Amino acid sequence: MRITALAGGVGGARFLRGLRHALDQRSLDRGVHDATPHTSADPGGPGSDASETAESPPHTLSIIGNTGDDITLFGLRVCPDLDTLLYTLGGAVHEQQGWGRAGDTRRVQEELLAYGAAPDWFGLGDLDLATHIIRSQWLGQGYTLSQVTARLAERWGLPDRGIELLPMTDTPVETHVVLAGDEPSAVHFQEWWVRMQAQPPVERFVVAGMDRATAAPGVLDAIRNADVILLPPSNPVVSIGIILGVPGVRDALRGTTAPVVGVSPLIGGAPVRGHADACLSAIGVEATSAAVAGLYADFLDGWLIDPADAGMSLGGTEVAVYDEALLMTSVEKAARIADAALDLALDLAGKR
Amino acid sequence: MRITALAGGVGGARFLRGLRHALDQRSLDRGVHDATPHTSADPGGPGSDASETAESPPHTLSIIGNTGDDITLFGLRVCPDLDTLLYTLGGAVHEQQGWGRAGDTRRVQEELLAYGAAPDWFGLGDLDLATHIIRSQWLGQGYTLSQVTARLAERWGLPDRGIELLPMTDTPVETHVVLAGDEPSAVHFQEWWVRMQAQPPVERFVVAGMDRATAAPGVLDAIRNADVILLPPSNPVVSIGIILGVPGVRDALRGTTAPVVGVSPLIGGAPVRGHADACLSAIGVEATSAAVAGLYADFLDGWLIDPADAGMSLGGTEVAVYDEALLMTSVEKAARIADAALDLALDLAGKR
Repeated sequence: MRITALAGGVGGARFLRGLRHALDQRSLDRGVHDATPHTSADPGGPGSDASETAESPPHTLSIIGNTGDDITLFGLRVCPDLDTLLYTLGGAVHEQQGWGRAGDTRRVQEELLAYGAAPDWFGLGDLDLATHIIRSQWLGQGYTLSQVTARLAERWGLPDRGIELLPMTDTPVETHVVLAGDEPSAVHFQEWWVRMQAQPPVERFVVAGMDRATAAPGVLDAIRNADVILLPPSNPVVSIGIILGVPGVRDALRGTTAPVVGVSPLIGGAPVRGHADACLSAIGVEATSAAVAGLYADFLDGWLIDPADAGMSLGGTEVAVYDEALLMTSVEKAARIADAALDLALDLAGKR
Repeated sequence: MRITALAGGVGGARFLRGLRHALDQRSLDRGVHDATPHTSADPGGPGSDASETAESPPHTLSIIGNTGDDITLFGLRVCPDLDTLLYTLGGAVHEQQGWGRAGDTRRVQEELLAYGAAPDWFGLGDLDLATHIIRSQWLGQGYTLSQVTARLAERWGLPDRGIELLPMTDTPVETHVVLAGDEPSAVHFQEWWVRMQAQPPVERFVVAGMDRATAAPGVLDAIRNADVILLPPSNPVVSIGIILGVPGVRDALRGTTAPVVGVSPLIGGAPVRGHADACLSAIGVEATSAAVAGLYADFLDGWLIDPADAGMSLGGTEVAVYDEALLMTSVEKAARIADAALDLALDLAGKR
């Protein structure tokens, strides 16, 4: 089974780590050679298809990561969402924080600040900095962000586990926030999100560079050729919304025959994590699970919601109520939620 | 008194730290307002010259640092000699090692190596990396190496102590080593020096970029306007020799009226530190104190040597034998050696 997901940072990464666990469990439960819609049509048996041997994971996961959060700090290119995905899926994330490396220190950044460098509001651990240094070096050598990300993913063992991490675009883009007020002013998304804690009201989001961006290699095919497409409970505006703005992505989602199933990032009108409500307010959308689903109405087939939101109905989209709170408080809970989203998708495809 | 020195890395830095101590001691011993040849002609007294108040050090030290060792590692611009000067004069150097930061760790570099980055033979501590990151950022923003170095020096308190650190040139240059052998091959100086431990015989040194280099702002004036010029016991080929190759530097040394006094980097035919013998051999010069002085013959006025080398005579250069071994094994010993070099210079100028 080929699954493709669009993802932001912490929420997306936790969901996808759970999904990978759920997929591994499915393979174990059902055996490797007849596990999936994709392989069930395959005669199976030794030698029938080299790509379907027991060594390669029977379910593959392509992740299209948001790069709108990307920022250049201390001259180094930082890709917060891609890094959170790498560290979380690679088993190296700072679990409580949700981003950055477990057991990291801040020796280098303290030195940078001692030199009078800015900013101090974006925390960069020492281990984390190594990622930004090597990424910047490779980008400087002419490799694309896709190529760089693939090399980073190797180190975290993602290909071996059937995970492909694709930046949404290789074109440098940055989400900027135009602040509401009499004086026009704009800040980088990270400055608004991290330093200002998403407090100042937003006039609008602008994705600098998107006008010349194209989808990175593999992105549109990952949508077109998927068996299932999942939207993790990532921020609908500044994560999923930014990916949907990459030319061709939304059209590919509308056109694909695969079921598209999303997991609500809101529970009873409040975001599980982050400042999704402030982002929705900025684009004039109500902070409800139904309103978020409405943003995806043109391609969304299924929507998994929290019991607190039970009762909503969406035209053209199948709503499923999860059997407990939609909270990814552990890998196991995230795996169960991912499993439920996958079941919904397979039901919609008539394949379960 | 305005002193100008040409300097490489560890030996130069230790000598100049000693010199700064010696100069501070001279100011204390003699009082601030009539301490020096430069100020003795000054009527003195309050208000006579704002630059000669008690707040500004009465003796200033301009250091022209070698940048031929500079190298780009992990995409970051590393200036080993300038950094050794900054850290040593700033009181932050790793004393036993002679370079790098005291109490440094290698967390970032270990991560870089885990990502498959190279090289592993050049040690970069975490605190040290902050210097390279911020330097690279500032260079990327369009500041010159002189401007960047001045900003770094601020952090280490050098201006407050009357020390000006000037890179020899703002043009990126790199000393490369053409290795002897049937197959022509060249490596960066650092690779030959650090990884190969200066073992492979050298065909010649080539300074890439020197053909378009110009002296950095202030360098030639620091030589022309000095009261005393000192050559620390730095490597005569790959440190002092490289600086002498910057257009205008050698001419300025020949033309200045200030006494030029050097301290021998060799004792009884062996370098005190580093691989000066291998470097001298590469340029076909005997590894003796006299032969090194011969490299400077066209501008050298005084030469301070170890007792082991007593008896040499140099045409046109006054030779002084130091009263103990010419070893800078402590700050105090380095200060005494610097003081002796300074005395020799003042004698030659008839000013002591």
